[in-house]
Amino acid sequence: MSSPKKVVLAYSGGLDTSIILKWLETEYGCEVVTFTADLGQGEELEPARKKAELLGVKPENIYIEDLREEFVRDFVFPMFRANALYEGQYLLGTSIARPLIAKRLVEIAEATGADAVAHGATGKGNDQVRFELAAYALNPGIRVIAPWREWSLTSRTKLLAFAEENQIPIAKDKRGEAPFSVDANLLHTSSEGKVLEDPSEEAPEYVYQRTVSPESAPNTPEYVEIGFERGDAVSIDGEKLSPAELLTRLNVLGGRHGIGRIDLVEGRFVGMKSRGVYETPGGTILLAAHRGIESITLDRGAAHLKDELMPRYAELIYNGFWFSPEREMLQALIDTSQEHVEGTTRLKLYKGMASVVGRSSPKSLYSEQHVTFEDDAGAYDQKDAAGFIKINALRLRLLGMRARR
Amino acid sequence: MSSPKKVVLAYSGGLDTSIILKWLETEYGCEVVTFTADLGQGEELEPARKKAELLGVKPENIYIEDLREEFVRDFVFPMFRANALYEGQYLLGTSIARPLIAKRLVEIAEATGADAVAHGATGKGNDQVRFELAAYALNPGIRVIAPWREWSLTSRTKLLAFAEENQIPIAKDKRGEAPFSVDANLLHTSSEGKVLEDPSEEAPEYVYQRTVSPESAPNTPEYVEIGFERGDAVSIDGEKLSPAELLTRLNVLGGRHGIGRIDLVEGRFVGMKSRGVYETPGGTILLAAHRGIESITLDRGAAHLKDELMPRYAELIYNGFWFSPEREMLQALIDTSQEHVEGTTRLKLYKGMASVVGRSSPKSLYSEQHVTFEDDAGAYDQKDAAGFIKINALRLRLLGMRARR
Amino acid sequence: MSSPKKVVLAYSGGLDTSIILKWLETEYGCEVVTFTADLGQGEELEPARKKAELLGVKPENIYIEDLREEFVRDFVFPMFRANALYEGQYLLGTSIARPLIAKRLVEIAEATGADAVAHGATGKGNDQVRFELAAYALNPGIRVIAPWREWSLTSRTKLLAFAEENQIPIAKDKRGEAPFSVDANLLHTSSEGKVLEDPSEEAPEYVYQRTVSPESAPNTPEYVEIGFERGDAVSIDGEKLSPAELLTRLNVLGGRHGIGRIDLVEGRFVGMKSRGVYETPGGTILLAAHRGIESITLDRGAAHLKDELMPRYAELIYNGFWFSPEREMLQALIDTSQEHVEGTTRLKLYKGMASVVGRSSPKSLYSEQHVTFEDDAGAYDQKDAAGFIKINALRLRLLGMRARR
Amino acid sequence: MSSPKKVVLAYSGGLDTSIILKWLETEYGCEVVTFTADLGQGEELEPARKKAELLGVKPENIYIEDLREEFVRDFVFPMFRANALYEGQYLLGTSIARPLIAKRLVEIAEATGADAVAHGATGKGNDQVRFELAAYALNPGIRVIAPWREWSLTSRTKLLAFAEENQIPIAKDKRGEAPFSVDANLLHTSSEGKVLEDPSEEAPEYVYQRTVSPESAPNTPEYVEIGFERGDAVSIDGEKLSPAELLTRLNVLGGRHGIGRIDLVEGRFVGMKSRGVYETPGGTILLAAHRGIESITLDRGAAHLKDELMPRYAELIYNGFWFSPEREMLQALIDTSQEHVEGTTRLKLYKGMASVVGRSSPKSLYSEQHVTFEDDAGAYDQKDAAGFIKINALRLRLLGMRARR
Repeated sequence: MSSPKKVVLAYSGGLDTSIILKWLETEYGCEVVTFTADLGQGEELEPARKKAELLGVKPENIYIEDLREEFVRDFVFPMFRANALYEGQYLLGTSIARPLIAKRLVEIAEATGADAVAHGATGKGNDQVRFELAAYALNPGIRVIAPWREWSLTSRTKLLAFAEENQIPIAKDKRGEAPFSVDANLLHTSSEGKVLEDPSEEAPEYVYQRTVSPESAPNTPEYVEIGFERGDAVSIDGEKLSPAELLTRLNVLGGRHGIGRIDLVEGRFVGMKSRGVYETPGGTILLAAHRGIESITLDRGAAHLKDELMPRYAELIYNGFWFSPEREMLQALIDTSQEHVEGTTRLKLYKGMASVVGRSSPKSLYSEQHVTFEDDAGAYDQKDAAGFIKINALRLRLLGMRARR
Repeated sequence: MSSPKKVVLAYSGGLDTSIILKWLETEYGCEVVTFTADLGQGEELEPARKKAELLGVKPENIYIEDLREEFVRDFVFPMFRANALYEGQYLLGTSIARPLIAKRLVEIAEATGADAVAHGATGKGNDQVRFELAAYALNPGIRVIAPWREWSLTSRTKLLAFAEENQIPIAKDKRGEAPFSVDANLLHTSSEGKVLEDPSEEAPEYVYQRTVSPESAPNTPEYVEIGFERGDAVSIDGEKLSPAELLTRLNVLGGRHGIGRIDLVEGRFVGMKSRGVYETPGGTILLAAHRGIESITLDRGAAHLKDELMPRYAELIYNGFWFSPEREMLQALIDTSQEHVEGTTRLKLYKGMASVVGRSSPKSLYSEQHVTFEDDAGAYDQKDAAGFIKINALRLRLLGMRARR
Repeated sequence: MSSPKKVVLAYSGGLDTSIILKWLETEYGCEVVTFTADLGQGEELEPARKKAELLGVKPENIYIEDLREEFVRDFVFPMFRANALYEGQYLLGTSIARPLIAKRLVEIAEATGADAVAHGATGKGNDQVRFELAAYALNPGIRVIAPWREWSLTSRTKLLAFAEENQIPIAKDKRGEAPFSVDANLLHTSSEGKVLEDPSEEAPEYVYQRTVSPESAPNTPEYVEIGFERGDAVSIDGEKLSPAELLTRLNVLGGRHGIGRIDLVEGRFVGMKSRGVYETPGGTILLAAHRGIESITLDRGAAHLKDELMPRYAELIYNGFWFSPEREMLQALIDTSQEHVEGTTRLKLYKGMASVVGRSSPKSLYSEQHVTFEDDAGAYDQKDAAGFIKINALRLRLLGMRARR
Repeated sequence: MSSPKKVVLAYSGGLDTSIILKWLETEYGCEVVTFTADLGQGEELEPARKKAELLGVKPENIYIEDLREEFVRDFVFPMFRANALYEGQYLLGTSIARPLIAKRLVEIAEATGADAVAHGATGKGNDQVRFELAAYALNPGIRVIAPWREWSLTSRTKLLAFAEENQIPIAKDKRGEAPFSVDANLLHTSSEGKVLEDPSEEAPEYVYQRTVSPESAPNTPEYVEIGFERGDAVSIDGEKLSPAELLTRLNVLGGRHGIGRIDLVEGRFVGMKSRGVYETPGGTILLAAHRGIESITLDRGAAHLKDELMPRYAELIYNGFWFSPEREMLQALIDTSQEHVEGTTRLKLYKGMASVVGRSSPKSLYSEQHVTFEDDAGAYDQKDAAGFIKINALRLRLLGMRARR
């Protein structure tokens, strides 16, 4: 295959992607366009610009963008409509960010006439799959370069040597190896590898970065009310907020109360199991709140169908199939269910827990009149239940008769 | 339909089932056999015997049984192999007890020559369905009597009048109406109705009966290790325990730390939504522990299939279809997956949370060699990932090409 | 419950619904509005008007409507987008007509100020459920009267006596009992009961009404091309046709070639098994054609998801849940998949079979370049397959290693 | 990677695998063990032995086995219990044979101390995946060699040149290229490629190899009765037959009547669509017969669950995951359902169709008493249906009330 001429690189400004930048130039003799996005990871973007300039990238080839609102509105919120949990536990904080980055990489490639995109994900993880499937789906002719799978810089020593050879500044704390690997965005922070590789060992407290420990959280509960419209959160304690503002606010609340820490072993799409520690403070509150408002506004038939399809939907996102027909089909199904998911969930935040304590809605399907132990004024005829049971039992009785024949 | 001659009644010894006992005799002129089971509800059984005798039931017609081991071994544990949660949250504590009671009712009916069984569940709830479907499945010719759907004792006043007319002793605290309705067994305590009927109102603290509030729980975490074999918990902190002993022990631990409270609105099988407050202290720990041990011993393909079918399985139990071919088929599928679910999960209990902090197993599928960021000695060839992605992307690229045509 | 004042009756003009008409007037002293629809059952509607008039129904209370286009466009076609088959075989010809009739019953009730609707389905079948669930969903306050479940006219003799008492004309051939029961509309004709009740006996040839036997069909195959847009058939042999015209045309073709006969035993929603003989000539061709065009235009991910959900979707329609959130959610999912289902399927019709022999589409995903055994000019790198397999195998190899430990 | 020392080759005796045999020796300097199996493909095996000897394989390294009974008993029949159809149509005739061949390859490798296995599947198809996933699952340390993905013999000319250089005899009719590619076993014959590559063109008659055309089939129907026990066919017209005998007999019947031809475009696991023509004469009859006997012996709950999971099960087999936990879990579920699938299905074979015309069973769940239009002696109380509907409608009515608020 011939060498790419121009490559758009997902660039963080850190050491690794700076090495990739230089390696791409060296290896392929190509022009590099850098793309740095603010997805709420909590880092300044301007240093990335400076670093790119320092490494010789032309100003018109440096793309810096704040994607926080798009991220929450078009990726996080649609996913939360599904109550998505991978393997029953993981809120998909890393998975959901990758398609957006890939989308912008491809769009910038098209805008700049680049013939390839590149990313800094390794060959053992899920992220390479997510980046690449999304890129290929959006531009089937694009070329994707994954230096970690290709190069010979297979040890820390070689990487640092390459950096030095290429005048890439190395921050002092990057000389040694990080004790674990981190990914962060507005939805979550994940930590994995190194000190976390033994799944029988409790994760050390210093791994956690955006939540206090439940033990250190306030001794007094805090209450919060989240308002929903069409399945999406729109307000906190009555104040209307944009998607990113709202999630930011929930992160503060959750972080303060030690909410959203999870330590798990998951099955990667590439076949091995890995151990991850995730912090999703705002997302954990949001999931509880969404289930809370659904509990009174979503019909049982709709809710159960959603629940049955959720694991599949979560798996698609985890595996990198955001831009696939089947994810879009499931999304259409889910979104159809959310029309009346409207109202307010009240939660109690305390020592790591976000507990729903109340829900109210103008679209409520909860009928005190029907459920009451008191006189229901004829809303429900208990005798109907006898027929309901008899008919439901008929096939079981026929089976029972056969068993006794 | 002619009157039943002999009826086996699920009898608690309480006021309501005592009224039913007398009503059955009065209404049908039939002989009543009482069946009182210890499912771990935390009440003495001997008073029920005394009460039945007092009401004139012949000694040979009084059945009192301790079913705790059978309950946990044959009902609770198989269900926990599935990680069953109804509507994403409810641990099915009431649902799972009903089939066992129905099974014994039918068996006692057959042993005593009774032609009917009776229960004290109302016509608005799920329990009537669970009792009756199970009874009909096990004995298609049995007759089931549900007095609450039939009689004219439709108010508290009428009930008490009937009790007085029939010399049924009324405990002082039963004169007034209970502020909510309770069901309990070794797995859980549920509370619903009356003061809980407004789902926007936080449940008052006095509703909770077997857990302290997280606020009142100890300020120091406690660690516990649960051992598993073939998917079932078999030990706590290394001590082998029978199923019921183990669950009892976990209930103590969970209750002490405020674990397993849940306040939710659920969709009943009979069509309306209802609000319930559940306490499942031991079960909540058990579920977390089971997911923990599965996370390292269950293959991803097996785990995801289980996750996708779990909502259906939970719905079947909730709806009363324990004794149905489809539940048995799902159970066979689930049990097949559990052969190697063996090892130990370590949990931290603190202020309402049971968090998995470690898992280890002789059957672990977690391979540090494969997942490591370090040199993996050739266990995994990162270049394979490129082909994996390319082939997975092919259909997406064909779609993308069509979109661009 | 008080008597209804005005009832809209699904009225065929036949003896049974004429008896119902009179019975409603007699039993409830209510006014009856008749609704007779042309769904393609192949009967004139004007005799129904005459009959209603003869029975004393006021002209303004006689509704006669041609619903064929609405039936095919809004009910049959959406269902065929899903390739719906109940229990793997039944094309749901009766099931899909009921919601439309119920919808018009309710709408006419609202237009005429009627407080109830009535239908002529028996208490053992599925149709009562379909009529009533649809009616309740569309108007939760409506009352539904099902005379067959209520009245005492429980034998043929009593029915005829009632007819005579009430001056209802009885056609000579209705004196005896029909040898089987028939339902027909543009999609299918079903026959069941009486001579068909023994499922081990072959259905007699005289049961079939709109298809010749394969043995009597032409000895020469006939070819037909069906054009599709967005998943719906729009043309036959290049000629654009409206939905009902198209299905009518396919029925002629299928009927002539003995296509679409099926003899099966199905599980009714009310719990027992029943044997039915169905003729769906046009629908059988349409299903094959739709699968044919999907085979080249629908991505594998989309197609498999549809296939997995189809049984659920078919069950919902069979059970009468057309107007339910879960059917609408599944429809949204299905419809999302059909955007590019466009092109032409060529079929061979011969002796009971409709075989796809060719498919072509401007939206085809079939790529000769990729699939060819010949040189593919680099479209596909076979070495990628090695990586694809290696990564897919990893979890199986980890399992294999465990098994060998 | 170092060279393998000894390789077990799936060897047909044909030109292609003979070339592979020599290529393995040449390329790797390894010893080759040949494995030739009779899976009912209809070819003599002794010529393969002769050919192997001629090519210099040591007698003790030549394995020739008749696997027909194992194939049908342990692979085909379990799959038919599921009514498995890939993409609604394909009976998986090729897919189901691959795991058995892989299993024997691995076992022979272990018996002979070989360190690798090899197969002749190309890099574009599904078979490579099926062979290799099975091999890796059964022996995680095995090495798999797929010459078509590796070698430089990328054209017919080069292949023939290699054959001549290596003294491999070339049958005259192999000089030119075959007009399409064929795979055959006791279950089916598949044809694909070359003349079949344009999916809009009807497959030419000469492609079909084991079925007459429906036009050439007898003008008189033939009836056959298939007996089942525990879900497996055990007899034809009352005569007990072993699995392979039975399928052989059905193939004769089906072939004679032109049954089991299918022409389709399918989605390959490796991402592209391909067109295949399949002949599955006996399997098509067997599937119809199995559905027939299930229709009276399988409960609706069991049947629907099976139907919903079937596409997943079929996909697993198609994709090569026979030896995976999820296939085994689904098999356990399916097998649990088959205990009472016993009795006889009567079919009419005529001009390409296998139509069920009767079913009878000692385990029948069909109850004439319940379904009859006649007096049912109280087996079913039609009034129960009213309650059944009312309760099923409740949630729809609550939705309707909300819509009208």
